Amino acid sequence: MRLLVANANTTEAITELCAASARAAAAPGTEIIPATPRFGPVVIATRAEGAIAAHGLLSLLAEHAGRVDGVLLAVSHDTALEAARQLLPCPVVGMTEAACFAACLLGGRFGLVTMGSVDVYRERIAQHGLAGRLAALRGIALTPQDAVRDPEAVALEMDAAIAAVVAEGADAVVLGGAALAGMGPRLQRHAAVPLLDGIACGVKLLEMLVALGLPKPVAGSYAAPRGRETLGLDPALAALLRGG
Amino acid sequence: MRLLVANANTTEAITELCAASARAAAAPGTEIIPATPRFGPVVIATRAEGAIAAHGLLSLLAEHAGRVDGVLLAVSHDTALEAARQLLPCPVVGMTEAACFAACLLGGRFGLVTMGSVDVYRERIAQHGLAGRLAALRGIALTPQDAVRDPEAVALEMDAAIAAVVAEGADAVVLGGAALAGMGPRLQRHAAVPLLDGIACGVKLLEMLVALGLPKPVAGSYAAPRGRETLGLDPALAALLRGG
Amino acid sequence: MRLLVANANTTEAITELCAASARAAAAPGTEIIPATPRFGPVVIATRAEGAIAAHGLLSLLAEHAGRVDGVLLAVSHDTALEAARQLLPCPVVGMTEAACFAACLLGGRFGLVTMGSVDVYRERIAQHGLAGRLAALRGIALTPQDAVRDPEAVALEMDAAIAAVVAEGADAVVLGGAALAGMGPRLQRHAAVPLLDGIACGVKLLEMLVALGLPKPVAGSYAAPRGRETLGLDPALAALLRGG
Amino acid sequence: MRLLVANANTTEAITELCAASARAAAAPGTEIIPATPRFGPVVIATRAEGAIAAHGLLSLLAEHAGRVDGVLLAVSHDTALEAARQLLPCPVVGMTEAACFAACLLGGRFGLVTMGSVDVYRERIAQHGLAGRLAALRGIALTPQDAVRDPEAVALEMDAAIAAVVAEGADAVVLGGAALAGMGPRLQRHAAVPLLDGIACGVKLLEMLVALGLPKPVAGSYAAPRGRETLGLDPALAALLRGG
Amino acid sequence: MRLLVANANTTEAITELCAASARAAAAPGTEIIPATPRFGPVVIATRAEGAIAAHGLLSLLAEHAGRVDGVLLAVSHDTALEAARQLLPCPVVGMTEAACFAACLLGGRFGLVTMGSVDVYRERIAQHGLAGRLAALRGIALTPQDAVRDPEAVALEMDAAIAAVVAEGADAVVLGGAALAGMGPRLQRHAAVPLLDGIACGVKLLEMLVALGLPKPVAGSYAAPRGRETLGLDPALAALLRGG
Amino acid sequence: MRLLVANANTTEAITELCAASARAAAAPGTEIIPATPRFGPVVIATRAEGAIAAHGLLSLLAEHAGRVDGVLLAVSHDTALEAARQLLPCPVVGMTEAACFAACLLGGRFGLVTMGSVDVYRERIAQHGLAGRLAALRGIALTPQDAVRDPEAVALEMDAAIAAVVAEGADAVVLGGAALAGMGPRLQRHAAVPLLDGIACGVKLLEMLVALGLPKPVAGSYAAPRGRETLGLDPALAALLRGG
Repeated sequence: MRLLVANANTTEAITELCAASARAAAAPGTEIIPATPRFGPVVIATRAEGAIAAHGLLSLLAEHAGRVDGVLLAVSHDTALEAARQLLPCPVVGMTEAACFAACLLGGRFGLVTMGSVDVYRERIAQHGLAGRLAALRGIALTPQDAVRDPEAVALEMDAAIAAVVAEGADAVVLGGAALAGMGPRLQRHAAVPLLDGIACGVKLLEMLVALGLPKPVAGSYAAPRGRETLGLDPALAALLRGG
Repeated sequence: MRLLVANANTTEAITELCAASARAAAAPGTEIIPATPRFGPVVIATRAEGAIAAHGLLSLLAEHAGRVDGVLLAVSHDTALEAARQLLPCPVVGMTEAACFAACLLGGRFGLVTMGSVDVYRERIAQHGLAGRLAALRGIALTPQDAVRDPEAVALEMDAAIAAVVAEGADAVVLGGAALAGMGPRLQRHAAVPLLDGIACGVKLLEMLVALGLPKPVAGSYAAPRGRETLGLDPALAALLRGG
Repeated sequence: MRLLVANANTTEAITELCAASARAAAAPGTEIIPATPRFGPVVIATRAEGAIAAHGLLSLLAEHAGRVDGVLLAVSHDTALEAARQLLPCPVVGMTEAACFAACLLGGRFGLVTMGSVDVYRERIAQHGLAGRLAALRGIALTPQDAVRDPEAVALEMDAAIAAVVAEGADAVVLGGAALAGMGPRLQRHAAVPLLDGIACGVKLLEMLVALGLPKPVAGSYAAPRGRETLGLDPALAALLRGG
Repeated sequence: MRLLVANANTTEAITELCAASARAAAAPGTEIIPATPRFGPVVIATRAEGAIAAHGLLSLLAEHAGRVDGVLLAVSHDTALEAARQLLPCPVVGMTEAACFAACLLGGRFGLVTMGSVDVYRERIAQHGLAGRLAALRGIALTPQDAVRDPEAVALEMDAAIAAVVAEGADAVVLGGAALAGMGPRLQRHAAVPLLDGIACGVKLLEMLVALGLPKPVAGSYAAPRGRETLGLDPALAALLRGG
Repeated sequence: MRLLVANANTTEAITELCAASARAAAAPGTEIIPATPRFGPVVIATRAEGAIAAHGLLSLLAEHAGRVDGVLLAVSHDTALEAARQLLPCPVVGMTEAACFAACLLGGRFGLVTMGSVDVYRERIAQHGLAGRLAALRGIALTPQDAVRDPEAVALEMDAAIAAVVAEGADAVVLGGAALAGMGPRLQRHAAVPLLDGIACGVKLLEMLVALGLPKPVAGSYAAPRGRETLGLDPALAALLRGG
Repeated sequence: MRLLVANANTTEAITELCAASARAAAAPGTEIIPATPRFGPVVIATRAEGAIAAHGLLSLLAEHAGRVDGVLLAVSHDTALEAARQLLPCPVVGMTEAACFAACLLGGRFGLVTMGSVDVYRERIAQHGLAGRLAALRGIALTPQDAVRDPEAVALEMDAAIAAVVAEGADAVVLGGAALAGMGPRLQRHAAVPLLDGIACGVKLLEMLVALGLPKPVAGSYAAPRGRETLGLDPALAALLRGG
């Protein structure tokens, strides 16, 4: 089974980090193929960057369409998830979506902790239909750069954030963002509930969906596009929209 | 990996049917262990039967606690799911819960079709927090016995029910109830969207949860019971509640 | 009018406490009949205990079916309420359900205070459809044992919890759990809004439902069971499920 | 116990009809005191009439404040319910509110049938926080005048409306509007689920609230008004707002 | 274009304040016509006052019906908004409604700050269907009288309240109540997000609705009343309800 | 006042159509500046096209940033609305958002009719927080091409769709999609409730927001981006993300 781990920003180092997490989670026989867009935001931290990144991401996916068995969107806001799910012939899963759904299988309500703003996470979780199962969100005022510089300081703040969302009723906690991935085992040792890493959850959910061998819908708004004309797009993306 | 497929009614033939579906879905290396309660309803079709069945089911699970890696509740109303999840040291998944969450990864909204009443399904889906992603429910006025007697007649009605929920906006459809499991491939050939069987989805989600190796929560209402006294229960169940 | 006050745990002292509250609230002519299950948890404090207790409770109710005019579930999580409502020919009310609905008739939003975890209360209130009218929940970190040992200390903490939910907008406050029943008048003297005791509210709501003389539904999922087969259940419960 | 049955329109015949229903439902010892506003709409059928009627209704209530033990608003849209609840020293219940809450104690979801538009009922039920328990609403295109002229024709249409909301999942059905009150027993004979009359339910809920002897809140937006100045209002109403 | 700015309390000074704000916001060619009810509460601060005020307000509007192009309800709880919208032949907008809808066009979630209780605001925003976009409400424990006596003290508390709702995720903040109107520019200088004044927003939304030239509905519960009989109302109001 | 009317697909004829509608709605002194992206989908009909179009649209907006006073997104799914709102220094409104909010000011619940699928509209309305005010959606199985070929046939089907959503309780109806814009006056003549055109509403709401002169937020997720690095984007877009 070939799974594409597609970053949505243009920073290859982040792609590599995610691919390593994905390989650690993958079953024997699952091949992880990392991929990075050729244009777009270097890092996605704002609404505008998320919207712009969709194009580069979908162009990237189009190049791999038909040659992979599943796609993991390695971007914490699940950028362009619904579009990718419609566009591609194979299953597509977003990393935060994956972690949130896995968290729901472990208890009643879940929390999410991240570095920076929680606003887009709140909206994304609501769009996933899971607002009723969200106990609390918490963003610490530190950056991925801080995590590189002083990982223990970040870990201590993160421990506190996790404890806070547990106190608000979270039975499991999603780690939001690729930057926290490596920190998972360290944080888990201090946490009272299970912590969920989106890359690991996403790989396992894709292995499930591929194994189930489900057909692509041929009705509704997730059926593959067909006969759609475009202007100035990459040939692979244009071809996929044209269908046929 | 050893997965318990626990029926909640006392009909071994249904347990065997579910176990066969589970084995068909299991990865190499996953052992399926079927189990049937020793007392309770012969079939669960009403609210009262569901509530009564919880005791027999939890007694059954207690006997296997510590000797399996995960538990699939092979009962379409996800009977006693939250209680089992709290009680056992390993992951527990309900078959309808599993199919609904898998359906969410395939599109926007999902539908559910079943034989008989949809009322308890509607409530269960709301309790799973997924009411916002439910497009429609449809129950056909035929029974599992009809499905044995004249499977094609049931299949034709079911095709119509599936088409109806797709017309109401379902991008994927959950097959509610073990009796539909065997019918899945036949129904899928006529359906415009993917159909989801709870047993298959449950096995794959358990394989995921076991592979993730997450710890049991030690805080909140899903932490294992400890020091709870009981009267007149099976020794294994009493012991599990007492903890230790 | 004969009202069964059915405990769901096996501790007769708690049954007696609830029966005394019920008698204090009952109208002249209302007879209170206390009943305690013969097996199950000694006290219900966790999800697993709640699920297990349903069987003993429903067995108990079956013994009284047809010989009482109404049933009050004297258990704070409204254990097996929907099942009992379907199973019995007479009205059935849960004590927390009763207090929450009464609270809604007194103002805009209500609060709930209890000893211990509020998680199951939050879920139960949502299942009752009243999440939109819930201002706040608060659980104090003391136990019913503490209330016996040092009632004034518990009362002081409870005063503070009540004041806190009033500050969050509660126009009335539900006292969660039988252990608080006796404390009601003491707490009311210090509270800015009315406090509701589930046993008293439940008795009055049952008197109302009995007086209204409403028929049992013969359609839908609350119609009485009929022709349901079981294995190894008490004869009275088995007979009620068989119907006829 | 003295209960005021306060109409909100100026038609005494409707007041008498409601008072008769109330007396039929009242316990021995409950005195029913009918009251009709001196100004306002002759019948309330539109939003504008409902808003205007509040003044006449509250003026009427002010005259009785302190001389009754409870107030039933005998107006199907629960006109000025929250205001009356704040204003008066005794419990106040609306007739549709009463029927909806009673319906919730009988099953999972309820329906409502009425003559004319259902829009304001839908909004009122949502404001009562019960939208999640509403299965369906149905208004027949006949008027109270038709019901006087040809009661059987109206009853047959109403039977069909009731059957329709039951088919959509209602376990109990609220009869919306005073005009249906007299028809209740006739309709109940053909209905598969219990039917609820707001006047009867309201009387019983008031008997409950009076019996519980709860204090008036002294905090929040339902505390009695105090020191509020007015211009041109009836002396009793002005005095009540001034408090003191 | 003639816009009526209708106060719902009887204090002309407040009407004048609102009219001044309205004139400051109005486009050239928009004439602002202030109006004050002849009876009712001097100030509306409680539920009872709001319900009573509806009559005086609707009587006032009836006098102007047909002679103005739009109506702004200059009352912070949007008193009688739905009734006025049905009753009048021209567009009607409430000041808090206006500010909330404008706030939605500026970001994701909005907050509201006011003097006094937030309970009725919370309910009104829910009735407007905007509960999902409300980040937080905050009421300071000071009165309009305090604002006259020591405006800077009030402004400092208000600055803190605004900062608090921004910290809870508000991208824009509604100023609740006419008393804050004059303070807007002062508060805006210290705020991190845009502040919205209901009078200004209401004038602009009415200018929009009038410019769009939309017809009055002739179906549904907002169609004009017709043939409605009344007792003891002002001739203009009675005539409007009679229609024709 | 200069308002950009920005199409999100690359078809200039549609841009011109929208600009003409915009000019018809604009106040004297409002200049309408049409703009069409240089790359992307020729028409947006699917999820994938919507996501791809965001890049071209935001590049286009970046070229105009600072030189217009407001932006109307002339694309029926409100493509990239939140991103554009964050990115630009001036107000941004989406055409369907505009029509839905205007519809809320005219009655209780609104409907939406369109050509083709309603799925994305339903999601968009939910994201705007207005799901609770949506009475019904209806999509006719005809295309904009059909509307060019046989406008009367399309108008008749549209009349029926409008009548259907009115029957389901809509007090106002949004016309979804630019193709219906020209048809508005024809459809309004047969409709029982007001019909809302997104271009007209959007222009008026922008005139309102510009007139209010509100500041850009400097906190939260709608504050302007600053210091964001990108790869391979248009210079204007890259500069705007870099800020400064």
